[in-house]
Amino acid sequence: MILEVATLDVIPGKAHEFETAFAKASEIIASMPGFISLQLQHCIESQSRYLLLVKWQKLEDHTRGFRESPEYQEWRKLLHHFYDPFPTVEHYDLVLEK
Amino acid sequence: MILEVATLDVIPGKAHEFETAFAKASEIIASMPGFISLQLQHCIESQSRYLLLVKWQKLEDHTRGFRESPEYQEWRKLLHHFYDPFPTVEHYDLVLEK
Repeated sequence: MILEVATLDVIPGKAHEFETAFAKASEIIASMPGFISLQLQHCIESQSRYLLLVKWQKLEDHTRGFRESPEYQEWRKLLHHFYDPFPTVEHYDLVLEK
Repeated sequence: MILEVATLDVIPGKAHEFETAFAKASEIIASMPGFISLQLQHCIESQSRYLLLVKWQKLEDHTRGFRESPEYQEWRKLLHHFYDPFPTVEHYDLVLEK
């Protein structure tokens, strides 16, 4: 299992619209092979900032399976125009849990 | 419930030592009032990068309860010398889970 992590800085004033679009987009990603779960978190200190955490069975489920799918084009259309700057995405392995 | 999030950039070459120290330090934070759970995640793309995710019952359990405690001084002693640069910590509220 791997964790996809992206800090999403949304254009100020667009937060509500982004959350509505994200709710729709989350249906798309949740239907993909290898998807386990996701959380969208909202930053307390920076009102325009969100954190996306997605658990995938393996790295390629995200980097190839999802990103190279027709569904990803829908995801992009729904969400990418909200971001400034465009987010960096990283992947993580669990070291320790408590 | 809130999520504490910190990207931890560890001095190159110190990753193994950091993970050992973190295992010890995690006992300290896990004993604090309001602590729910934590994950230490290791970045696949950047070998010196970790992500710390800590769930607290409320913001003040971290910002006051833990940070103003004697236990925090132990935590600092164990971990802070591994970081370069020193990490920024943010807190998040859950918007959507799937």
